[in-house]
Amino acid sequence: MKKIKVGVAGYGVIGQRLADGIVKQDDMELVGVVDVAPTLSIRALYDSPKPYDLYVVDDSMKAFFEAEKIPVKGNFDDLLSRVDIMLDAAPGGVGIKNKEIYKAKGVKAIFQGGEKNEVADVFFHGYANYPKGVGKDYLKLTSCNTTGFIRAVDCIDKAVGVERVVVTIIRRVADPGDTHRGLVDVAQVEKVPNHQAKDLMLIMPHIEATGALIHVPTTHGHIITILATPKKKISVDEAISLFEAHPRIKVVDIAKGFNSNTALFKYARDKGNKRADMYEIGLFREMVALSGDNLFFTISIPQESVVIPETIDGIRASLSLQTDGKEAVKLTNKYLGME
Amino acid sequence: MKKIKVGVAGYGVIGQRLADGIVKQDDMELVGVVDVAPTLSIRALYDSPKPYDLYVVDDSMKAFFEAEKIPVKGNFDDLLSRVDIMLDAAPGGVGIKNKEIYKAKGVKAIFQGGEKNEVADVFFHGYANYPKGVGKDYLKLTSCNTTGFIRAVDCIDKAVGVERVVVTIIRRVADPGDTHRGLVDVAQVEKVPNHQAKDLMLIMPHIEATGALIHVPTTHGHIITILATPKKKISVDEAISLFEAHPRIKVVDIAKGFNSNTALFKYARDKGNKRADMYEIGLFREMVALSGDNLFFTISIPQESVVIPETIDGIRASLSLQTDGKEAVKLTNKYLGME
Amino acid sequence: MKKIKVGVAGYGVIGQRLADGIVKQDDMELVGVVDVAPTLSIRALYDSPKPYDLYVVDDSMKAFFEAEKIPVKGNFDDLLSRVDIMLDAAPGGVGIKNKEIYKAKGVKAIFQGGEKNEVADVFFHGYANYPKGVGKDYLKLTSCNTTGFIRAVDCIDKAVGVERVVVTIIRRVADPGDTHRGLVDVAQVEKVPNHQAKDLMLIMPHIEATGALIHVPTTHGHIITILATPKKKISVDEAISLFEAHPRIKVVDIAKGFNSNTALFKYARDKGNKRADMYEIGLFREMVALSGDNLFFTISIPQESVVIPETIDGIRASLSLQTDGKEAVKLTNKYLGME
Amino acid sequence: MKKIKVGVAGYGVIGQRLADGIVKQDDMELVGVVDVAPTLSIRALYDSPKPYDLYVVDDSMKAFFEAEKIPVKGNFDDLLSRVDIMLDAAPGGVGIKNKEIYKAKGVKAIFQGGEKNEVADVFFHGYANYPKGVGKDYLKLTSCNTTGFIRAVDCIDKAVGVERVVVTIIRRVADPGDTHRGLVDVAQVEKVPNHQAKDLMLIMPHIEATGALIHVPTTHGHIITILATPKKKISVDEAISLFEAHPRIKVVDIAKGFNSNTALFKYARDKGNKRADMYEIGLFREMVALSGDNLFFTISIPQESVVIPETIDGIRASLSLQTDGKEAVKLTNKYLGME
Repeated sequence: MKKIKVGVAGYGVIGQRLADGIVKQDDMELVGVVDVAPTLSIRALYDSPKPYDLYVVDDSMKAFFEAEKIPVKGNFDDLLSRVDIMLDAAPGGVGIKNKEIYKAKGVKAIFQGGEKNEVADVFFHGYANYPKGVGKDYLKLTSCNTTGFIRAVDCIDKAVGVERVVVTIIRRVADPGDTHRGLVDVAQVEKVPNHQAKDLMLIMPHIEATGALIHVPTTHGHIITILATPKKKISVDEAISLFEAHPRIKVVDIAKGFNSNTALFKYARDKGNKRADMYEIGLFREMVALSGDNLFFTISIPQESVVIPETIDGIRASLSLQTDGKEAVKLTNKYLGME
Repeated sequence: MKKIKVGVAGYGVIGQRLADGIVKQDDMELVGVVDVAPTLSIRALYDSPKPYDLYVVDDSMKAFFEAEKIPVKGNFDDLLSRVDIMLDAAPGGVGIKNKEIYKAKGVKAIFQGGEKNEVADVFFHGYANYPKGVGKDYLKLTSCNTTGFIRAVDCIDKAVGVERVVVTIIRRVADPGDTHRGLVDVAQVEKVPNHQAKDLMLIMPHIEATGALIHVPTTHGHIITILATPKKKISVDEAISLFEAHPRIKVVDIAKGFNSNTALFKYARDKGNKRADMYEIGLFREMVALSGDNLFFTISIPQESVVIPETIDGIRASLSLQTDGKEAVKLTNKYLGME
Repeated sequence: MKKIKVGVAGYGVIGQRLADGIVKQDDMELVGVVDVAPTLSIRALYDSPKPYDLYVVDDSMKAFFEAEKIPVKGNFDDLLSRVDIMLDAAPGGVGIKNKEIYKAKGVKAIFQGGEKNEVADVFFHGYANYPKGVGKDYLKLTSCNTTGFIRAVDCIDKAVGVERVVVTIIRRVADPGDTHRGLVDVAQVEKVPNHQAKDLMLIMPHIEATGALIHVPTTHGHIITILATPKKKISVDEAISLFEAHPRIKVVDIAKGFNSNTALFKYARDKGNKRADMYEIGLFREMVALSGDNLFFTISIPQESVVIPETIDGIRASLSLQTDGKEAVKLTNKYLGME
Repeated sequence: MKKIKVGVAGYGVIGQRLADGIVKQDDMELVGVVDVAPTLSIRALYDSPKPYDLYVVDDSMKAFFEAEKIPVKGNFDDLLSRVDIMLDAAPGGVGIKNKEIYKAKGVKAIFQGGEKNEVADVFFHGYANYPKGVGKDYLKLTSCNTTGFIRAVDCIDKAVGVERVVVTIIRRVADPGDTHRGLVDVAQVEKVPNHQAKDLMLIMPHIEATGALIHVPTTHGHIITILATPKKKISVDEAISLFEAHPRIKVVDIAKGFNSNTALFKYARDKGNKRADMYEIGLFREMVALSGDNLFFTISIPQESVVIPETIDGIRASLSLQTDGKEAVKLTNKYLGME
């Protein structure tokens, strides 16, 4: 089987995890990653046993890396000439500039949630609208929160239909080690509806959604409470069964120690997962309840890694590797170990 | 007019604010406060221009205070013999022991939310169930979160009726300066429903309520999102008008700088309020929205001071100063400057 | 006695406290404050019983304030024509532009630590180099940390001489309610020496100083450990006596509850101090110790209010109200209630 | 070569890392770990590819684990009968009870810093006092902070002698995911000297040490500033060279992104280290400076993993595997990959 050749632009929090995810796909090959400076993450990469090939945006940057004894494989053009598709994880706003380069070179690309929707032909989620992405040149993924809660809402929607959703997002304000943003002793609010609710409606236009966003001083996972109004009545037990059967949802028990966003991080770390990552959203069993006929539940979003599976689904769609979404996500899940 | 004589047990976060509140009531008189040790708050009281009279639990503790040059007015018995009613703000679990003392002395008392419901004849909220407290010897106040969101729910309920409520409480995990509890980089969850939703149903039994509780590392005010299902449709503007007319709700604008729990604290501090306190809950104007016919809104609870007005309402009820709740809260509000 | 007329530019964290401080000086008069927008602090001012007169930078801004029902007394020029001296607490970098305006109008000014030293004729500290400021048109105050630890170092220096100082500054990273900066779960370091140690050497050139700066996720006061090498041996008890005799140092006991930066904030708040402020630095009694002959001690800096007294000293120097520093600080202290 | 058989008591933060460390030693064998309940860490262990053998404290606990489908290899007695030495990482206070069991069975043991010194024959540090541990039955390791800064102090001491040390410890107050302790917006202080300075003097009695301890709301590594008075003058460059040559010290550059405690954690995570762990202390190059002839420098302590190497040194000492400390630490370092 000829493997799909994939490049990654931007070796930051998301980029490095996309690269890891590609390496795990039997039908894909990571050609390399491109970045602009020898960041801490790139130093770590080159201090690790098997670094990925590294490309620079332009040749003038080579000396900068080589001074740090970090070998450079080529430049952006070189990388683009060797790949079938680029995963663009450059900082928000850079992707739209990169797109012009991709177009000029005739290379497909998938952008992350930080870019504006205009960057892409389709706003994409592997489970909720896979067919829309099939054969398209440029996809944009939903952001981490939206990717995560759409999994859960889509899971209920496929079973009984969902009419309406209200989310309260308790957003971790920075990633671990980020010294450029943060809050101290503040829970900061924003205008309702939040962009995540609006994004859900773009992906699932048959659902009415609204929601609040509260930024809090934590780094290890957003917490979201979701109230979903189903079309047909569903019990707590039925809902839990559906969630448990979903490969990208991990139902966890508060009583067994999964009592917080950070407990999930600690679990992944204690288990020995690379980078202490999880691809699954966590869903707290003891927090599933009914309010009237509405289903109320709470999830935790591992913001650093949650979009990896859906991005890989995007490759499958864009390159028409699978035209059936179910088949596509099944393969992604299998290679990522989420069966 | 003969003034009602009031004592306060426990000069902690709540106790000191109850004392302040009593002093502001023209028809009440603070006889004194009783405590067990020269805490930081008591030192601060005695370094301030007009300290309240201080009583000790038993005479053996006198020397302890006097060594710190803090004068002692008498003991617990002395205080009880001089008051019509006690406001018990002792640490959770102590109130139930104190109650035996109050009963023996024939003194009425009002307990705070940290005590078990069994401590009192009535579980009380000044706006939502005032008549139940009239003439009763022992009342227990709702806790800070419940006191705050009942104000808003009751406000809508009185206008159009409320059937169902779902709350997501983002709970500040410690008060400012508390070194006995805290969380670092953790959003901790609990079993649904939280006790606050259950408490709402005890106070307003015609409403079905559930809710999630997430503890976060902040100190300056709980944030609560509330989804209320009204009996009659209500618009966003109508709801805001109702909230604006409520003396214990302050509608604030994110666009004007009220963008967080701490912004409300900062506002009170910049304004020069004593202890940087507010009695009102904050309600964020730009966060009032509809989901279907359900009303969705977000409030901030100043946990240290929010229960003061309703506790004073409790005095009015217990001593039958006013038999009509509307009249009672109007007086409390007037003396606390919340008209 | 003719009172000195003072204006304040910038009604932010420092500016509002400068205004309060001026109002307390019997020999000074606050003419008004000038700002560019109806911030949260200005709203709070105009919701308080006795607001200060407000000026706008230029007339075009008037409408903006008046739309919020905040009365405007005049513009920057009006204010400058009515004052003897300006206290400039504008954001860092604005002061240097304002200086040209002050020069053009022939108005003296005192700048805060956020400006570059070039803004002023003298880099000033009320206790450590008062004579240098006498009669000078433009002074720049030391920043909050430097102002605070110079008090303590100068106190020992005046008694026994100090040769060398090493400081470790554990810096609170944002003020309460600041949503523009912050850190979550990070202690961030900087190159040694920090600017504060360099600033100490500018003010006290006979001392060799170095130090480390570690930013931590707190808002209520910097903590600084100081190792001072004295010229003559000094005991722990002698040092404590010196500190206790200093009007701008408050020696506190951990054993009595002063166990943190936030405990000092809580104490000021519980005591009923306006804005929960303290002008004194806190010095922890149980943390004074010797290492060889070196004196080791730890202080807490109330970053919002600590520079007020020394800024007022600066007015006294610049306008030659007192030519003797001791007399000057004594008056400032008296009016601020720090005797 | 017959391998030394090692057991671990307590599979918590330290215990699980001790187990990992033993597995890496070619001359040692992990027999198993013993614990009392199916904690999150044990669940993670049994969800990982190669779990360690698990023993229960007594047989009555077996059912508890088996209900969770976690297989149990035996009880405490079984484990003790199969090992040459126990590494006791039980919660503080339990080790002293376990010691009686170890003595009764004639099994050697090494305790962690949370136990009282009386638990052991020798208070031990692999670099600073290896000979004292040789052949002894019961050793107690220094705690994480002390273990870390002794490495650096000993490194300078071996080269030029150290007379005096002053440390300021900025202590992370909880480990990641810990919901039982924490601080919010508080920097908490303690009486000087801290126990770590006293412990340094127990291990290196020729040095006079004192120090301050400030607890701050972070989880990813203590930061310590150290002022060391050397017996012979040493330059900054010489000191850095010594630190760079030390296998358990990692000299890092702020300019290259190592700007905080959490940056070191992020680096280890990005590099793919198991559990995101580092055994080395971090030492910030740009923070090494002189104050007079005193050396001033700053380190970061990875509190979860820093004691692993010295504990393994302890096994080598206690069982007289190597009688020369240099040889012992060299082997430990080699197997842990720290050459």
